[in-house]
Amino acid sequence: MSAAAKAAPSMDRELVLTRLIDAPREKLFRAWTEPELLKQWFAPKPWTITRAEIDLRPGGASLIVMRSPEGQEFPNPGVVLEVVKNQRIVMTDAYTKAWEPSEKPFMTAIVTFEDEDGNTRYTARARHWTVADRETHEKMGFHEGWGQCADQLAELAKRI
Amino acid sequence: MSAAAKAAPSMDRELVLTRLIDAPREKLFRAWTEPELLKQWFAPKPWTITRAEIDLRPGGASLIVMRSPEGQEFPNPGVVLEVVKNQRIVMTDAYTKAWEPSEKPFMTAIVTFEDEDGNTRYTARARHWTVADRETHEKMGFHEGWGQCADQLAELAKRI
Repeated sequence: MSAAAKAAPSMDRELVLTRLIDAPREKLFRAWTEPELLKQWFAPKPWTITRAEIDLRPGGASLIVMRSPEGQEFPNPGVVLEVVKNQRIVMTDAYTKAWEPSEKPFMTAIVTFEDEDGNTRYTARARHWTVADRETHEKMGFHEGWGQCADQLAELAKRI
Repeated sequence: MSAAAKAAPSMDRELVLTRLIDAPREKLFRAWTEPELLKQWFAPKPWTITRAEIDLRPGGASLIVMRSPEGQEFPNPGVVLEVVKNQRIVMTDAYTKAWEPSEKPFMTAIVTFEDEDGNTRYTARARHWTVADRETHEKMGFHEGWGQCADQLAELAKRI
Protein backbone atom coordinates (compact mmCIF):
# COMPACT_ATOMS: atom_id res chain seq x y z
CA MET A 1 0.00 0.00 0.00
CA SER A 2 1.44 3.38 -0.96
CA ALA A 3 1.87 6.10 1.62
CA ALA A 4 -0.56 8.25 -0.34
CA ALA A 5 -3.29 5.65 0.01
CA LYS A 6 -3.13 5.70 3.79
CA ALA A 7 -5.62 7.67 5.78
CA ALA A 8 -4.63 11.00 7.24
CA PRO A 9 -4.20 10.93 11.01
CA SER A 10 -7.63 10.87 12.59
CA MET A 11 -7.02 14.13 14.49
CA ASP A 12 -6.62 15.89 11.13
CA ARG A 13 -10.05 14.64 10.14
CA GLU A 14 -11.88 15.31 13.39
CA LEU A 15 -13.70 18.30 14.83
CA VAL A 16 -14.46 18.39 18.53
CA LEU A 17 -16.92 20.41 20.57
CA THR A 18 -16.91 20.02 24.32
CA ARG A 19 -18.78 21.71 27.16
CA LEU A 20 -19.10 21.20 30.88
CA ILE A 21 -22.86 21.26 31.41
CA ASP A 22 -24.63 21.67 34.74
CA ALA A 23 -27.04 18.77 34.26
CA PRO A 24 -26.95 15.02 34.85
CA ARG A 25 -25.95 12.72 32.00
CA GLU A 26 -29.42 11.20 31.96
CA LYS A 27 -31.05 14.49 30.99
CA LEU A 28 -28.61 15.18 28.19
CA PHE A 29 -29.08 11.66 26.88
CA ARG A 30 -32.85 12.17 26.90
CA ALA A 31 -32.47 15.48 25.09
CA TRP A 32 -30.44 13.70 22.42
CA THR A 33 -32.71 10.70 22.00
CA GLU A 34 -36.29 11.83 22.56
CA PRO A 35 -37.49 13.46 19.33
CA GLU A 36 -39.68 16.06 21.03
CA LEU A 37 -36.73 17.21 23.10
CA LEU A 38 -34.23 16.96 20.26
CA LYS A 39 -36.35 19.32 18.19
CA GLN A 40 -35.95 22.02 20.83
CA TRP A 41 -32.18 22.36 20.68
CA PHE A 42 -30.62 20.45 17.77
CA ALA A 43 -30.68 23.31 15.24
CA PRO A 44 -29.03 26.66 15.94
CA LYS A 45 -31.87 29.15 16.24
CA PRO A 46 -33.47 30.70 14.22
CA TRP A 47 -33.16 27.41 12.33
CA THR A 48 -35.71 24.84 13.44
CA ILE A 49 -36.21 21.08 13.33
CA THR A 50 -39.43 20.09 11.58
CA ARG A 51 -39.01 16.35 11.88
CA ALA A 52 -36.93 14.14 14.14
CA GLU A 53 -36.95 10.36 14.18
CA ILE A 54 -34.36 8.09 15.70
CA ASP A 55 -34.46 4.32 16.05
CA LEU A 56 -32.06 3.94 18.93
CA ARG A 57 -30.13 0.73 18.23
CA PRO A 58 -27.20 -0.30 16.04
CA GLY A 59 -28.52 -0.17 12.49
CA GLY A 60 -31.50 1.97 13.46
CA ALA A 61 -32.38 4.76 11.07
CA SER A 62 -32.54 8.41 11.99
CA LEU A 63 -34.03 11.33 10.11
CA ILE A 64 -33.66 14.92 11.16
CA VAL A 65 -35.10 17.64 8.96
CA MET A 66 -33.76 21.14 9.51
CA ARG A 67 -35.54 24.25 8.30
CA SER A 68 -33.74 27.47 7.51
CA PRO A 69 -35.20 30.85 8.55
CA GLU A 70 -36.19 31.25 4.86
CA GLY A 71 -38.25 28.07 5.07
CA GLN A 72 -36.01 25.71 3.09
CA GLU A 73 -35.89 22.18 4.48
CA PHE A 74 -32.77 20.03 4.68
CA PRO A 75 -33.30 16.35 5.43
CA ASN A 76 -30.45 14.60 7.23
CA PRO A 77 -30.86 10.84 7.11
CA GLY A 78 -28.45 8.63 9.00
CA VAL A 79 -27.94 5.42 10.91
CA VAL A 80 -27.17 4.71 14.54
CA LEU A 81 -23.99 2.65 14.98
CA GLU A 82 -23.72 2.37 18.75
CA VAL A 83 -25.68 3.35 21.82
CA VAL A 84 -24.67 3.08 25.48
CA LYS A 85 -27.49 4.54 27.51
CA ASN A 86 -26.60 7.81 29.25
CA GLN A 87 -23.01 7.52 28.05
CA ARG A 88 -22.51 7.37 24.33
CA ILE A 89 -24.23 7.70 20.95
CA VAL A 90 -22.57 7.08 17.60
CA MET A 91 -24.28 7.94 14.31
CA THR A 92 -23.23 8.35 10.71
CA ASP A 93 -24.56 9.79 7.47
CA ALA A 94 -22.68 7.09 5.50
CA TYR A 95 -25.95 5.11 5.42
CA THR A 96 -29.51 6.32 5.01
CA LYS A 97 -30.82 3.13 6.62
CA ALA A 98 -29.35 -0.30 7.40
CA TRP A 99 -27.32 -0.80 5.25
CA GLU A 100 -28.01 1.48 2.34
CA PRO A 101 -24.98 3.60 1.39
CA SER A 102 -25.77 7.31 1.26
CA GLU A 103 -24.79 9.55 -1.63
CA LYS A 104 -21.77 10.76 0.30
CA PRO A 105 -20.24 9.44 3.52
CA PHE A 106 -19.39 12.76 5.13
CA MET A 107 -19.02 12.15 8.85
CA THR A 108 -19.51 10.02 11.92
CA ALA A 109 -20.72 11.75 15.09
CA ILE A 110 -19.53 10.39 18.41
CA VAL A 111 -21.27 11.96 21.37
CA THR A 112 -20.24 11.18 24.93
CA PHE A 113 -21.61 12.12 28.35
CA GLU A 114 -19.23 11.78 31.32
CA ASP A 115 -19.52 12.72 34.98
CA GLU A 116 -17.13 15.52 35.94
CA ASP A 117 -17.20 17.29 39.30
CA GLY A 118 -20.94 17.03 39.66
CA ASN A 119 -21.52 18.24 36.12
CA THR A 120 -21.48 16.45 32.79
CA ARG A 121 -18.66 16.62 30.32
CA TYR A 122 -20.46 16.74 26.99
CA THR A 123 -18.29 16.00 23.97
CA ALA A 124 -19.38 15.81 20.35
CA ARG A 125 -16.82 14.61 17.83
CA ALA A 126 -17.36 14.79 14.09
CA ARG A 127 -15.02 12.39 12.32
CA HIS A 128 -14.66 12.75 8.57
CA TRP A 129 -13.27 10.44 5.92
CA THR A 130 -11.10 13.15 4.43
CA VAL A 131 -9.20 16.21 5.58
CA ALA A 132 -11.07 18.20 2.89
CA ASP A 133 -14.42 17.27 4.41
CA ARG A 134 -13.21 18.25 7.86
CA GLU A 135 -12.14 21.62 6.47
CA THR A 136 -15.45 22.07 4.68
CA HIS A 137 -17.33 21.27 7.86
CA GLU A 138 -15.24 23.71 9.84
CA LYS A 139 -15.87 26.46 7.27
CA MET A 140 -19.59 25.64 7.34
CA GLY A 141 -19.41 26.80 10.94
CA PHE A 142 -19.05 23.59 12.94
CA HIS A 143 -17.74 25.27 16.08
CA GLU A 144 -20.25 28.11 16.06
CA GLY A 145 -23.21 25.89 15.10
CA TRP A 146 -22.54 22.97 17.40
CA GLY A 147 -21.47 25.42 20.12
CA GLN A 148 -24.76 27.31 19.91
CA CYS A 149 -26.65 24.01 19.94
CA ALA A 150 -24.71 22.87 23.01
CA ASP A 151 -25.77 26.08 24.75
CA GLN A 152 -29.39 25.41 23.74
CA LEU A 153 -29.00 21.83 25.02
CA ALA A 154 -27.68 23.08 28.37
CA GLU A 155 -30.55 25.53 28.62
CA LEU A 156 -33.13 22.83 27.81
CA ALA A 157 -31.61 20.45 30.34
CA LYS A 158 -32.50 22.89 33.13
CA ARG A 159 -36.16 22.65 32.19
CA ILE A 160 -36.65 18.89 31.86
CA MET B 1 -30.88 19.20 -2.62
CA SER B 2 -29.91 19.01 -6.29
CA ALA B 3 -30.67 15.91 -8.31
CA ALA B 4 -26.96 15.47 -8.90
CA ALA B 5 -26.34 15.26 -5.16
CA LYS B 6 -28.68 12.33 -4.74
CA ALA B 7 -27.33 8.81 -4.55
CA ALA B 8 -27.54 6.53 -7.56
CA PRO B 9 -30.11 3.74 -7.17
CA SER B 10 -28.67 1.13 -4.85
CA MET B 11 -28.93 -1.60 -7.49
CA ASP B 12 -26.50 0.40 -9.64
CA ARG B 13 -24.04 0.38 -6.79
CA GLU B 14 -24.40 -3.24 -5.73
CA LEU B 15 -22.77 -6.49 -6.79
CA VAL B 16 -24.40 -9.77 -5.81
CA LEU B 17 -23.08 -13.30 -5.66
CA THR B 18 -25.47 -16.07 -4.76
CA ARG B 19 -25.16 -19.86 -4.56
CA LEU B 20 -27.36 -22.70 -3.38
CA ILE B 21 -25.02 -24.68 -1.14
CA ASP B 22 -25.60 -28.22 0.10
CA ALA B 23 -24.79 -27.49 3.73
CA PRO B 24 -26.70 -26.21 6.75
CA ARG B 25 -26.64 -22.49 7.55
CA GLU B 26 -24.81 -23.19 10.79
CA LYS B 27 -21.77 -24.57 8.99
CA LEU B 28 -21.55 -21.69 6.57
CA PHE B 29 -21.85 -19.23 9.42
CA ARG B 30 -19.02 -21.02 11.24
CA ALA B 31 -16.87 -20.94 8.11
CA TRP B 32 -17.45 -17.19 7.91
CA THR B 33 -16.81 -16.41 11.55
CA GLU B 34 -14.17 -18.83 12.86
CA PRO B 35 -10.77 -17.52 11.76
CA GLU B 36 -9.20 -20.95 11.26
CA LEU B 37 -12.04 -21.92 8.94
CA LEU B 38 -12.21 -18.53 7.20
CA LYS B 39 -8.54 -18.85 6.26
CA GLN B 40 -9.30 -22.00 4.29
CA TRP B 41 -11.72 -20.50 1.80
CA PHE B 42 -11.86 -16.70 1.94
CA ALA B 43 -9.16 -16.02 -0.69
CA PRO B 44 -9.39 -17.43 -4.22
CA LYS B 45 -6.57 -19.97 -4.47
CA PRO B 46 -3.64 -19.74 -5.09
CA TRP B 47 -4.06 -16.61 -2.95
CA THR B 48 -3.96 -17.34 0.77
CA ILE B 49 -5.05 -15.74 4.03
CA THR B 50 -2.17 -15.21 6.43
CA ARG B 51 -4.15 -13.56 9.19
CA ALA B 52 -7.83 -13.49 10.08
CA GLU B 53 -9.35 -11.80 13.10
CA ILE B 54 -12.95 -10.90 13.62
CA ASP B 55 -14.63 -9.48 16.70
CA LEU B 56 -18.16 -10.63 16.06
CA ARG B 57 -20.38 -7.80 17.35
CA PRO B 58 -21.55 -4.42 16.09
CA GLY B 59 -18.47 -2.22 16.21
CA GLY B 60 -16.11 -5.17 16.42
CA ALA B 61 -12.95 -4.91 14.35
CA SER B 62 -11.91 -7.38 11.70
CA LEU B 63 -8.58 -7.83 9.97
CA ILE B 64 -8.02 -10.16 7.07
CA VAL B 65 -4.62 -10.25 5.42
CA MET B 66 -4.48 -11.76 1.94
CA ARG B 67 -1.27 -12.94 0.32
CA SER B 68 -0.76 -13.07 -3.41
CA PRO B 69 0.99 -16.03 -5.05
CA GLU B 70 4.02 -13.71 -5.37
CA GLY B 71 4.06 -13.22 -1.61
CA GLN B 72 2.72 -9.68 -1.37
CA GLU B 73 0.40 -9.10 1.57
CA PHE B 74 -2.76 -7.02 1.47
CA PRO B 75 -4.31 -6.13 4.83
CA ASN B 76 -8.08 -5.59 4.82
CA PRO B 77 -9.23 -3.94 8.02
CA GLY B 78 -12.92 -3.44 8.66
CA VAL B 79 -15.69 -3.27 11.20
CA VAL B 80 -18.68 -5.51 11.88
CA LEU B 81 -21.97 -3.61 11.70
CA GLU B 82 -24.51 -6.37 12.37
CA VAL B 83 -24.57 -10.05 13.22
CA VAL B 84 -27.56 -12.38 13.42
CA LYS B 85 -26.18 -15.82 14.23
CA ASN B 86 -26.52 -18.33 11.39
CA GLN B 87 -28.44 -15.78 9.33
CA ARG B 88 -26.64 -12.58 8.57
CA ILE B 89 -23.32 -10.76 8.78
CA VAL B 90 -22.73 -7.14 7.77
CA MET B 91 -19.26 -5.64 7.58
CA THR B 92 -17.68 -2.54 6.07
CA ASP B 93 -14.26 -1.17 5.21
CA ALA B 94 -15.50 2.37 5.93
CA TYR B 95 -13.98 2.03 9.41
CA THR B 96 -10.74 0.37 10.50
CA LYS B 97 -12.08 0.01 14.04
CA ALA B 98 -14.95 1.53 16.02
CA TRP B 99 -15.30 4.32 14.90
CA GLU B 100 -12.19 5.30 13.03
CA PRO B 101 -12.90 6.29 9.41
CA SER B 102 -10.77 4.39 6.92
CA GLU B 103 -8.82 6.06 4.12
CA LYS B 104 -11.59 5.19 1.68
CA PRO B 105 -15.08 3.86 2.32
CA PHE B 106 -15.29 1.40 -0.56
CA MET B 107 -17.98 -1.11 0.29
CA THR B 108 -20.32 -2.76 2.75
CA ALA B 109 -20.65 -6.54 2.57
CA ILE B 110 -24.01 -8.06 3.47
CA VAL B 111 -23.91 -11.83 3.73
CA THR B 112 -27.07 -13.87 4.29
CA PHE B 113 -27.76 -17.55 4.89
CA GLU B 114 -31.31 -18.79 4.22
CA ASP B 115 -32.90 -22.23 4.22
CA GLU B 116 -34.02 -23.30 0.76
CA ASP B 117 -35.25 -26.79 -0.09
CA GLY B 118 -32.95 -28.49 2.37
CA ASN B 119 -29.96 -26.47 1.20
CA THR B 120 -28.73 -23.02 2.08
CA ARG B 121 -29.17 -19.98 -0.10
CA TYR B 122 -25.90 -18.14 0.33
CA THR B 123 -25.92 -14.52 -0.83
CA ALA B 124 -23.09 -12.02 -0.61
CA ARG B 125 -23.86 -8.44 -1.55
CA ALA B 126 -21.20 -5.79 -1.97
CA ARG B 127 -22.74 -2.34 -1.73
CA HIS B 128 -20.63 0.60 -2.80
CA TRP B 129 -20.96 4.31 -2.21
CA THR B 130 -20.49 5.14 -5.87
CA VAL B 131 -21.27 3.61 -9.23
CA ALA B 132 -17.59 4.05 -10.13
CA ASP B 133 -16.52 1.91 -7.18
CA ARG B 134 -19.01 -0.77 -8.13
CA GLU B 135 -17.57 -0.79 -11.64
CA THR B 136 -14.01 -0.92 -10.34
CA HIS B 137 -14.92 -3.83 -8.10
CA GLU B 138 -16.58 -5.66 -10.96
CA LYS B 139 -13.50 -5.15 -13.16
CA MET B 140 -11.26 -6.34 -10.33
CA GLY B 141 -13.08 -9.64 -10.78
CA PHE B 142 -15.79 -9.60 -8.13
CA HIS B 143 -17.90 -12.32 -9.74
CA GLU B 144 -14.99 -14.64 -10.51
CA GLY B 145 -13.26 -14.06 -7.18
CA TRP B 146 -16.26 -14.26 -4.89
CA GLY B 147 -17.61 -17.10 -7.02
CA GLN B 148 -14.44 -19.14 -6.62
CA CYS B 149 -14.47 -18.40 -2.89
CA ALA B 150 -18.11 -19.52 -2.64
CA ASP B 151 -17.11 -22.80 -4.29
CA GLN B 152 -14.27 -23.16 -1.78
CA LEU B 153 -16.72 -22.38 1.01
CA ALA B 154 -19.13 -25.06 -0.21
CA GLU B 155 -16.28 -27.55 -0.43
CA LEU B 156 -15.09 -26.72 3.08
CA ALA B 157 -18.60 -27.01 4.49
CA LYS B 158 -18.64 -30.70 3.50
CA ARG B 159 -15.64 -31.35 5.71
CA ILE B 160 -16.61 -29.55 8.90
